Amino acid sequence: MIRIGIVGYGNLAKGAECSIMQNEDMELTAVFTRRDPASITLQTPHVGVYHMDDLPQWKDKIDVLLLCGGSATDLPALTPRLANDFNVVDSFDNHGEIGNHFANVHPAAEQSGHIAMISIGWDPGMFSVSRLYATSILPKGQTYTFWGKGVSQGHSDAIRRIDGVADARQYTLPIAKAMNRVRTGDNPELSTRDKHTRDCYVVTKDGADQNAIQQAIVTMPNYFADYDTTVHFISKEEMIRDHSGLPHGGSVIYNGVTGIHEEHSNTIEYRLNLESNPEFTASVLICYARAAMKMYHRGMTGCYTAFDVAPVDLSQTSREDLIKHML
Amino acid sequence: MIRIGIVGYGNLAKGAECSIMQNEDMELTAVFTRRDPASITLQTPHVGVYHMDDLPQWKDKIDVLLLCGGSATDLPALTPRLANDFNVVDSFDNHGEIGNHFANVHPAAEQSGHIAMISIGWDPGMFSVSRLYATSILPKGQTYTFWGKGVSQGHSDAIRRIDGVADARQYTLPIAKAMNRVRTGDNPELSTRDKHTRDCYVVTKDGADQNAIQQAIVTMPNYFADYDTTVHFISKEEMIRDHSGLPHGGSVIYNGVTGIHEEHSNTIEYRLNLESNPEFTASVLICYARAAMKMYHRGMTGCYTAFDVAPVDLSQTSREDLIKHML
Repeated sequence: MIRIGIVGYGNLAKGAECSIMQNEDMELTAVFTRRDPASITLQTPHVGVYHMDDLPQWKDKIDVLLLCGGSATDLPALTPRLANDFNVVDSFDNHGEIGNHFANVHPAAEQSGHIAMISIGWDPGMFSVSRLYATSILPKGQTYTFWGKGVSQGHSDAIRRIDGVADARQYTLPIAKAMNRVRTGDNPELSTRDKHTRDCYVVTKDGADQNAIQQAIVTMPNYFADYDTTVHFISKEEMIRDHSGLPHGGSVIYNGVTGIHEEHSNTIEYRLNLESNPEFTASVLICYARAAMKMYHRGMTGCYTAFDVAPVDLSQTSREDLIKHML
Repeated sequence: MIRIGIVGYGNLAKGAECSIMQNEDMELTAVFTRRDPASITLQTPHVGVYHMDDLPQWKDKIDVLLLCGGSATDLPALTPRLANDFNVVDSFDNHGEIGNHFANVHPAAEQSGHIAMISIGWDPGMFSVSRLYATSILPKGQTYTFWGKGVSQGHSDAIRRIDGVADARQYTLPIAKAMNRVRTGDNPELSTRDKHTRDCYVVTKDGADQNAIQQAIVTMPNYFADYDTTVHFISKEEMIRDHSGLPHGGSVIYNGVTGIHEEHSNTIEYRLNLESNPEFTASVLICYARAAMKMYHRGMTGCYTAFDVAPVDLSQTSREDLIKHML
């Protein structure tokens, strides 16, 4: 059994807890939190919640630690620190900073003799792997990534910070016309506005100026100004009834040419349609935790990403059975 | 430079020749054939064609040999034999026999200190990898594979063997309604007839009985009897004008559940839409030849499949650049 510890207990951690239940070679050993452990009730019976300060005592009782914190401030500090004592997996998703994060984590994991898997999930993660396979197979081509339909937490939070807003949910939607043009092998130049629209569902406080809120949203730089944005004002009840889920997904579409005159166009698409973004992301973390364990047992150390992991290492099934029955 | 040799000179080999031109770290060193070498003119200038009997002399002049022969009789003998002297990559695609092929190839490659990559292409190959990723991430779920629209060489050949047939081309088509049901996360039970139809374009010899030919096709066991099959009789000119290409493709669709009550459905789809099946397949072989070389330089030996190769090893780009710019 692979003994898993989880650090944090938000949506991603809860998704990991569910995923562990589906994997017969794993068990949840403990959850660690910065909050008062007594305030947390797990979905898994008979598993303890402990304060993060107790982590050093668990060094020999946990095989892999999943770090379910945020990429802005938690993981840059947490991943290198915990890689001193544990094999760790994180979902660091600040694309522009992954090089720096790697450089911070690698020496810690290497010196302590552990495996640290960083930036695991679907983007970065499975989408990155799809881009790498596609560009390796067909070096002459172009990659397009579309996201959605899905809830963006960052954009929802940005709306909630506007005066007079009680609650908000923001959906990113890919523009079907643009996706279909890309899928035909046509390689269009697409602006930000051509690829996605943004739909916002907003609950306002009593007496708030909805026109002012709408203007504040659609003109917000970086978040909304470059998109066609629609704002819907709804009641608190409608928000709970219709917008409690966290769906997401998207497509990586790659068009590459082959042939002596590059006369043939070939399209590769990897698509996700997720009813639960955090549960799917957590499920990716879990299978890379298994790979981390296999690599650790082989004597490997240091920092790795999804690019470095052979697919066979993600599976519960033996290599022999996979070759015979899944190839 | 990775020095590539190609064994055989059919459609797959010609596709590999084109792919090598797109990969700056590779060069085509020689082509080997069972035919009279003088009868073959390559697309690449200044590269020689040699008889297969000369292969032993090329041991130290070639880094990876691509084996572009058939799976029925060529590769089962060729791959283990040539793995004694070379790193080899083949596209052995007889799914039910891959376990035996592996067992024959592995000792030869291991004893001689070479790498043998078998069953590389898209099915087996990229489709297999997609199935493995999906089932590893979401262990509770169901896989569906649809093929087409594409030309099936085996089925085309089966029609050509019927009395009175001068030429034939068979297209496999996925049934859109079935694909869309699967994509919604509904997990339907689908029979062979529910998933694909077969379209046949046939040129008949003078005086042939078209009704008899049509009956012979649609009732042919294994090949057509289990499908809704349509037969179109066309002229030799129409065959050349409209059916000279070798398109193919398909989708691996996986529906998996997440959540404490398995209440969320998530769909993963990997789709290929290829204007040239042999050129795409050859491009896959080429990037796995690069991986074979990297693994060989690391001191690895023996038989491997696409399951065993980390995505990073397929790329021309350095690991550092991939982590910074593609993750």
